[in-house]
Amino acid sequence: MPSSVERTETTSFLLMFQIHTRARDSRARTGTLHLAHGEVQTPAFVPLATRGSVKLLEPRDVLDLGYEMVLGNTFHLYLSPGPELIDAHGGLGAFMRWPGPIITDSGGFQVFSMGHGGVADEIKGRGRGQEQGSSSSAILSIGEEGVRFRSYIDGGERFLAPETSMAVQHALRSDIALVFDECTPFHVTRDYTARSTERTHRWLERCLDWHEQHGRAEQVVYGIVQGGVEPDLRIESAETVAASRCRGVAIGGSLGQDKAQMHQVVDWTTAALERVTPERPRHLLGIGDIDDLLVGVGLGIDTFDCAMPTRLARHGVAVVPEPSQRWRVDLAKARFRGSQEPIMEDCHCPVCRAGFTRGYIHYAVRAGETTGRRLLTLHNLSFIQRLMSDLRQAINSGSLNETVAAFMSGAAPSWS
Amino acid sequence: MPSSVERTETTSFLLMFQIHTRARDSRARTGTLHLAHGEVQTPAFVPLATRGSVKLLEPRDVLDLGYEMVLGNTFHLYLSPGPELIDAHGGLGAFMRWPGPIITDSGGFQVFSMGHGGVADEIKGRGRGQEQGSSSSAILSIGEEGVRFRSYIDGGERFLAPETSMAVQHALRSDIALVFDECTPFHVTRDYTARSTERTHRWLERCLDWHEQHGRAEQVVYGIVQGGVEPDLRIESAETVAASRCRGVAIGGSLGQDKAQMHQVVDWTTAALERVTPERPRHLLGIGDIDDLLVGVGLGIDTFDCAMPTRLARHGVAVVPEPSQRWRVDLAKARFRGSQEPIMEDCHCPVCRAGFTRGYIHYAVRAGETTGRRLLTLHNLSFIQRLMSDLRQAINSGSLNETVAAFMSGAAPSWS
Repeated sequence: MPSSVERTETTSFLLMFQIHTRARDSRARTGTLHLAHGEVQTPAFVPLATRGSVKLLEPRDVLDLGYEMVLGNTFHLYLSPGPELIDAHGGLGAFMRWPGPIITDSGGFQVFSMGHGGVADEIKGRGRGQEQGSSSSAILSIGEEGVRFRSYIDGGERFLAPETSMAVQHALRSDIALVFDECTPFHVTRDYTARSTERTHRWLERCLDWHEQHGRAEQVVYGIVQGGVEPDLRIESAETVAASRCRGVAIGGSLGQDKAQMHQVVDWTTAALERVTPERPRHLLGIGDIDDLLVGVGLGIDTFDCAMPTRLARHGVAVVPEPSQRWRVDLAKARFRGSQEPIMEDCHCPVCRAGFTRGYIHYAVRAGETTGRRLLTLHNLSFIQRLMSDLRQAINSGSLNETVAAFMSGAAPSWS
Repeated sequence: MPSSVERTETTSFLLMFQIHTRARDSRARTGTLHLAHGEVQTPAFVPLATRGSVKLLEPRDVLDLGYEMVLGNTFHLYLSPGPELIDAHGGLGAFMRWPGPIITDSGGFQVFSMGHGGVADEIKGRGRGQEQGSSSSAILSIGEEGVRFRSYIDGGERFLAPETSMAVQHALRSDIALVFDECTPFHVTRDYTARSTERTHRWLERCLDWHEQHGRAEQVVYGIVQGGVEPDLRIESAETVAASRCRGVAIGGSLGQDKAQMHQVVDWTTAALERVTPERPRHLLGIGDIDDLLVGVGLGIDTFDCAMPTRLARHGVAVVPEPSQRWRVDLAKARFRGSQEPIMEDCHCPVCRAGFTRGYIHYAVRAGETTGRRLLTLHNLSFIQRLMSDLRQAINSGSLNETVAAFMSGAAPSWS
């Protein structure tokens, strides 16, 4: 066994999360999530099945790429088709024919995005931009009880509160439910952030109470650390979540105005978690650019979800090992017309293996042939799955720093 | 061997088309097309890859369903991405990564649709409706030389003539090229139809001349029978095409104002072909409703192409064994909300086998989740592939009439 790793064989936290290897010089670790519908090897990326499908793919495609868990969206599925319908089908997995574990977010992010505007972009350290889905919904009131808003589906009034969110996630029968939180944006005062974070902590307890009384034993609940970009609030929030009955910890809310700050906020948070609850699994909400995955794994994140690979694909963008280009190439650009190059050299994804050229993808995306977007979705998700697999292997063999440095300088996943 | 079939072991027409079994009491036959990129068992349905993709699918999906040939569209591919680009990739098959045979239509249908209006609907015996793709193109002039028109892609002038069409199909490197024809509509005089059909015959010779001088030996050319709904013109056209150097015969143009007339026009035509050129393969252009396939096979059609299964899927419609419902069920309709029924009982398509419900498909289609349309595309194409396979088996075993009668009364393909 390499000397730079410390092997822990202890069974952690009620067997739900088993840590296999911890890196010596970072907070990185490999582990296995033992969930109701199967296991997830961590660190792992979790593709989005926001409205009950990984866009353009079937579940068998997602399985074939090597993914073990997907993320469903409580807010959207609450509005349509509704929890009763999904419950009658036997839960979200049965409904969408995904046999493996599912994590559901709580709806807090989406419902507060309506009020706070482009919170998604702030969180990710980008400029403001448009987010889909919530544009024609509107918050009617926010209070201690919960949030009243207008549905973008039918214009009717809806109410989401900690208990509602847990009840919906109960109906969805996800393996991992997230507590309902206020997703505080960046452009608010420290005082607002502090009060918002305290409310999130009270909501955490209400969610856990609801789950204790009505929830299924096979569904585990993650708390959410808030606290904006204030180190003391983040640390306090991490400690509060750690002191609760939650089984895992998600990191949410505003993560800063740029990537450096976002990585710093995650660093504060996982440092605190490492101190107070090292055995609980950690999920980083909504983050998954390649550099964020590389940094996040080193900071001790176990699971990530992000729209990036699937959303970029729908806009004609392929993920490639080019750090100076943010690991992206926009194949819709005119210069790829007629290109006979592959999407990526030596790529073993099903699309590159089948020999599709950049020129074909360019043409298909521009012509509106949806197959082009599907091909890019497969390529992008394959890239990220391979990357995560390489990172897990690197942690296990004590070579994470070298592997991360290689990726940061433009190496491709090894496709081992 | 059943007594009702006559087995022909002779190698037919330069080995390109080998007929295996002829039904005794109809013109139905089974055969194998030996083409440059592989074999096609007939009677066969040919899915559309109009603009270089079978919409929402990858080539491997189409192969997995059991299809052996797809149809590409000369008109659309001529305008974008253009024949030079596809030629530089090594042809349409190499470009779209389809390893098997390809048939390309000539562009005649599309270019004349611009001038004649909703010719597609007339041909299929439906009321007028909208057809995609050519709406913003416009014919500038039609003459003996060819057709000048405005591209719907860039507004530029383009010219399609028999020689241009053959040159484009040469660049596309399809296994089967169709001659450039005037697709005469229903609402014209007998005199117009007669003159148009004569011009189509002159264009046939020009196409064959071009191919003889410049074409590849591995590309075979089909002539097209026109003649509208006039029996004598149809028969004369069939004889003219039969007397030419073409290797196969397609049936095109106006096939009447309703299905009964369409079936009659096909009957006249294949009766004539059976008399003058029984060994050449016959393709029925743009026809493929379930009842049309059942009738067409009996009339001696070897291959069919049609947008029906893929286009219906994109509108939320599944193909099912319900003759009284035109073999269709519109899953976008409100009554399928929450339905836990399968798309079709005992269906062995990959979608039904995976357990997707009508309620899920309904939800996905209404929510704009493209996965729903993909699932229906797979189901519909699977249905038709199985149907054709059953029909081939029935012809070989001398039980075509019984099999057709069973399907007409609502039997499902046997999934054998």
